[in-house]
Amino acid sequence: MHVREMISTHPHVQGSTADALLKCIEECYSCAQTCTSCADACLGEEMVKELTQCIRLNLDCADICAATGAMGSRRTGSNVEVLRAAIQVCAEACRTCGDECAKHAEMHEHCRICADSCRSCEQACRDAMSQVH
Amino acid sequence: MHVREMISTHPHVQGSTADALLKCIEECYSCAQTCTSCADACLGEEMVKELTQCIRLNLDCADICAATGAMGSRRTGSNVEVLRAAIQVCAEACRTCGDECAKHAEMHEHCRICADSCRSCEQACRDAMSQVH
Amino acid sequence: MHVREMISTHPHVQGSTADALLKCIEECYSCAQTCTSCADACLGEEMVKELTQCIRLNLDCADICAATGAMGSRRTGSNVEVLRAAIQVCAEACRTCGDECAKHAEMHEHCRICADSCRSCEQACRDAMSQVH
Amino acid sequence: MHVREMISTHPHVQGSTADALLKCIEECYSCAQTCTSCADACLGEEMVKELTQCIRLNLDCADICAATGAMGSRRTGSNVEVLRAAIQVCAEACRTCGDECAKHAEMHEHCRICADSCRSCEQACRDAMSQVH
Repeated sequence: MHVREMISTHPHVQGSTADALLKCIEECYSCAQTCTSCADACLGEEMVKELTQCIRLNLDCADICAATGAMGSRRTGSNVEVLRAAIQVCAEACRTCGDECAKHAEMHEHCRICADSCRSCEQACRDAMSQVH
Repeated sequence: MHVREMISTHPHVQGSTADALLKCIEECYSCAQTCTSCADACLGEEMVKELTQCIRLNLDCADICAATGAMGSRRTGSNVEVLRAAIQVCAEACRTCGDECAKHAEMHEHCRICADSCRSCEQACRDAMSQVH
Repeated sequence: MHVREMISTHPHVQGSTADALLKCIEECYSCAQTCTSCADACLGEEMVKELTQCIRLNLDCADICAATGAMGSRRTGSNVEVLRAAIQVCAEACRTCGDECAKHAEMHEHCRICADSCRSCEQACRDAMSQVH
Repeated sequence: MHVREMISTHPHVQGSTADALLKCIEECYSCAQTCTSCADACLGEEMVKELTQCIRLNLDCADICAATGAMGSRRTGSNVEVLRAAIQVCAEACRTCGDECAKHAEMHEHCRICADSCRSCEQACRDAMSQVH
C-alpha cells in the first residue's frame, strides 16, 4: 500500500500527514479484504449453517471498511463531520465482526486472523478520530 | 429494482417487510448512481475548478450510499446497531452533498437532479431509522 | 433511478443519450442489489450447505455489476476499450449467476427473481455493446 | 494485508496457495486505494481542468480493481471464466490509467506513484492469469 506516499504528495496536504489517519486507511482496505476472505472461507466450511451470522457480519464489515477507506483517502475540499461519522461506524462494525469471529477462532484459523484484523482496524479507527476535525 | 420482491421472499422475513427500509435501500442504490454521475458531469464542466468540493462530496456520498444499500439488503442474522449507524451516516452524507449540489442547481441541471436525489435519500434514511431496531 | 436525466444533462453528452447504455447502467445497479439480496437469502435457508456456489456467484456478480454500473455512468474523457471489456465480463457474470439461480428457482422464489434479474442485466449488457465504441 | 494467511486457511485451499494470485489480490486492493487517492489529488491541483481524463481513468481503475480483488479473494465453489475475464479487464484498466498518469509524472508526484502502482498491478494481473484455470 502506498497510502503515505499518496497522501503526502496531495496538493492540499503539503507534507503534513496525519499518521493515525494513514494507518486507519491502510487498516480499512486490509480489513475489507480479510472480511471478504473470511466470509468465503466460512462459506466453504462443513459447518456453514452455524457460521451464517459470522458471514453476514463479515460482509457488512467489508462494505463499510471499503467505503471508509475510500472516504478517508480524499483530501480535496472537506467533509469532516461525515468522515468522522463513517470512521465511527467502521469501528463499531469491526468490533461486532471481531467479537463474532473470536467465537470461532479456536476452530477456524481464518476466523482467528479475521478477529485480529478487525480489532486492529477498530483501534486504528478510534485512534484516527482524534486527528479528523 | 426488485427490492420488495427480494426482501419479501427472504427466509427470515416471511412476508413481513418494513416498507420504510425497502424505500431506503432503493434510494441508496439510486443515489449512489446519481452521485457517481454528478461527480463525472461536474468534472466535464468548463468551471470544474469551482466544483471540486461538489465532486468530493458526490464521491463520498456515492461510497456510503452503496455500502448502506448493501448492508440494508441483508436480513440473515442481525446487525442492528451497525446498520442504524450506517443509515445515520448515509443521511448526513446525503444532507451535506445535497446542500452543496443545491448551490449549483440553477447553473447545472445535473446538480439540481442530484440535490433532489440526495434529499430524497436523506428522508428515506431518516424514515427507515424508526423501523430498524 | 435518474440515469437518463443525469446522463442527458452531462456537459459532454448534450442531449444525445445512448438508450441501450442507459438501460445497461440501470440494470447493473438493480442486479447488484438483487444479487446482494439473493446471497443473503440463500444464507438464511435451511439448506445453505447446498447453496454455497450460488452465494459465491451472487457475490461475484454483485461486485462486477456495481463496478460496471459506475464505469458506465462516467462520460468525461473516454475509456471505451476498458468499458466495453467490463460490460462483457458483467454479461458473463450475469449469465453464470443466472444459470445457477435458475437451478433453484422452483424451490426458492428469491433465486427465481434473481435469475430473471441476471438475465435481464445480461441482455442489457449485450445490447449496450453495440453503442459503446 | 493478510491475503496469504487468509487464503491458506480456506477450507477449499488446504495450504496450496497460488502465489501469483495472492500477489494479484494484494495489488488490486493497493491500486484501488492509490487510484482513489490520485483522483482526489488531481482534483486538488490548480490545473485540474487538464487532469479530468486522468481523474476519470483513476476512478474507473479503482472500481475494477476493487471488484477484482474481492472476486479473487473467493475460493468457495468456482467461477474461473468470470474471474479470468475480470483479471484481464483489470490489467487493461491499469495499463490505460498507468499510461495517462505517466504523462503527468514529472509534474505531479502522486501521478508518478500511481503510474507505478498501476503498472505493478497490471503485471500482477497478467502473472495471475496462468494460475487461474
